[in-house]
Amino acid sequence: MRFDIITLFPDMFEAVLGVSIIGRARNAGLLDLYFHNLRDYSQDKHKRVDDYPYGGGLGMVLKCEPIFSAVESINEKLDSKAHVVLMSPKGKTFSQSIAEEMLNYKNIIIICGHYEGVDQRVVDVLVDEEISLGDFILTGGEIAAMAIVDATARLIPGVLKEKESYEVETFNNGLLEYPQYTRPAEFRGIKVPDVLLSGHHENIEKWRKYQSIKETFLKRPDLLNRANLTEEEQEILEQIFEEEK
Amino acid sequence: MRFDIITLFPDMFEAVLGVSIIGRARNAGLLDLYFHNLRDYSQDKHKRVDDYPYGGGLGMVLKCEPIFSAVESINEKLDSKAHVVLMSPKGKTFSQSIAEEMLNYKNIIIICGHYEGVDQRVVDVLVDEEISLGDFILTGGEIAAMAIVDATARLIPGVLKEKESYEVETFNNGLLEYPQYTRPAEFRGIKVPDVLLSGHHENIEKWRKYQSIKETFLKRPDLLNRANLTEEEQEILEQIFEEEK
Repeated sequence: MRFDIITLFPDMFEAVLGVSIIGRARNAGLLDLYFHNLRDYSQDKHKRVDDYPYGGGLGMVLKCEPIFSAVESINEKLDSKAHVVLMSPKGKTFSQSIAEEMLNYKNIIIICGHYEGVDQRVVDVLVDEEISLGDFILTGGEIAAMAIVDATARLIPGVLKEKESYEVETFNNGLLEYPQYTRPAEFRGIKVPDVLLSGHHENIEKWRKYQSIKETFLKRPDLLNRANLTEEEQEILEQIFEEEK
Repeated sequence: MRFDIITLFPDMFEAVLGVSIIGRARNAGLLDLYFHNLRDYSQDKHKRVDDYPYGGGLGMVLKCEPIFSAVESINEKLDSKAHVVLMSPKGKTFSQSIAEEMLNYKNIIIICGHYEGVDQRVVDVLVDEEISLGDFILTGGEIAAMAIVDATARLIPGVLKEKESYEVETFNNGLLEYPQYTRPAEFRGIKVPDVLLSGHHENIEKWRKYQSIKETFLKRPDLLNRANLTEEEQEILEQIFEEEK
C-alpha cells in the first residue's frame, strides 16, 4: 500500500511516521510513504500556492494549479490511479471503519488543506473523498493525515505482531478494555485486584468481562447500542445498571 | 499556557509543533511546550517502562512508577499543579468545546499511552481526564496529543492573526463553510461562479449563506440540529430541503 501526502510541511511527517510500528512496516516493504511539498508544484516564481478569495473575505485560499499539478504528477508514477482524499472539516468523520475502507485502495493521495480552504474546483474535480478527523479546528491537515496513515497502516496484514494486534480485537467487539495492571502488586498502598494474582483463569475472565462492560457503561454508554452483546453480557449489563443507579 | 508531554517518542513533536502558527506562538512566548521521554524516569537499569499484564494476556502495560515519577517531577517545576490528561480510547471524544475548556488550565500534562495500555493506578490516582481523539486505533497517543495542543493553542488570545481567526468564527456559527475560489477565474474550462466576480456584496453574502447551509445539509446534516439558525437561515434550509428531495 502506498500513500502520497501533498503538504506545505513535508518535514513534519518523517519524525512521526518514520519510527515505531509504522517505521518498521515501511522497512519491511509493507507500506510506502511519500511526502510532497506543494510549493514544488507552483508555477509561480515566488512559489506561491495561495491567493485571495474571490468575493472578498479574510484568509487565503489554496490555488487549483499546484494541487492539480501535484496529483497528476504523482498519478503518472503509479501503476493505478490513486484514491484522492482531502483533509477537510467538511468531510466524513474518520473512524475505524473508514480506516478499513482505505485498505481497499492500493494507492492513496492525501491533500493537506491549510489557510482558509482550497479552491472548490479541487474538491469538485480531483477529490474522491473528504475526511475530517473530528469536530475541532487544526492548523492544517498534516496531523489528521498522520492519524489516517497510522490507523490504516496498522490494519495491513503483517504490520502488527501478534501481541500488538490484540487491542484491535478488543476494540472490534465494541467494548472498552478492562483495567490493566502490571508489577508491582502494591504501589503506594494501592493493590492490584486479588483476582488478577489468583491464577484462576475462569475468574479472571469473568472479572475482565464485568469490568469491560462497566467501563463502557460508565465512560462510553453510546458504544453499548452498537455492541453485539451476548446473552451473558446483557445480563452483566443489567446487573451493573442496578448497581450504579 | 504550558503543556508538558510525557511520551516514549519525544522527537516526534518538535517537527510538528515547532513550525507554522504553533512555532510562532512559542517564539512569541504565548505557549510553552516541553517534551519528556518516559524512559528518563525509569528506575530500571534497562530503562524499561512496561511489563506483562497481571492476569495474563497479550500485549504490555506501561508501569506506574515511571509515570508517577515523571508527573511529580514536572509538577515540582510548575508554579501551580498541572491538569493531567491521558490520551486513551476510553476518554471523552475530543472536540472544539474540550479545546476551549483546556484554556482554563495554566499547565497541562499530557500522558501518551502506548502498548496495550497503562496501569490502572495511573488512571485512578494521577489522571484528571481521559481524552480520545476519535473512534479509531492509533499506535500511540502522540498524534492525538499533537492535535490537542494544536487545537487548544490556536485559541490562546494573540496566537492567531486576524486573517487566520476568521475560520474559527465560521466554525462557531455551527455551519460548514461556503465554497471558496481564487484565481484563475477559469481553470480548464471550469469557471468561478459569476456572483463572486460581480462585486455585488449583498448578493455575494446571500450566495455564501445559501451555499453554507447547503454544504451543511448535504455533508453534515447532524450539525444543523445543533446550529442556531436565524429565521432567514431556517427559510433557506427549507428551500434547500425542497430542492434536494
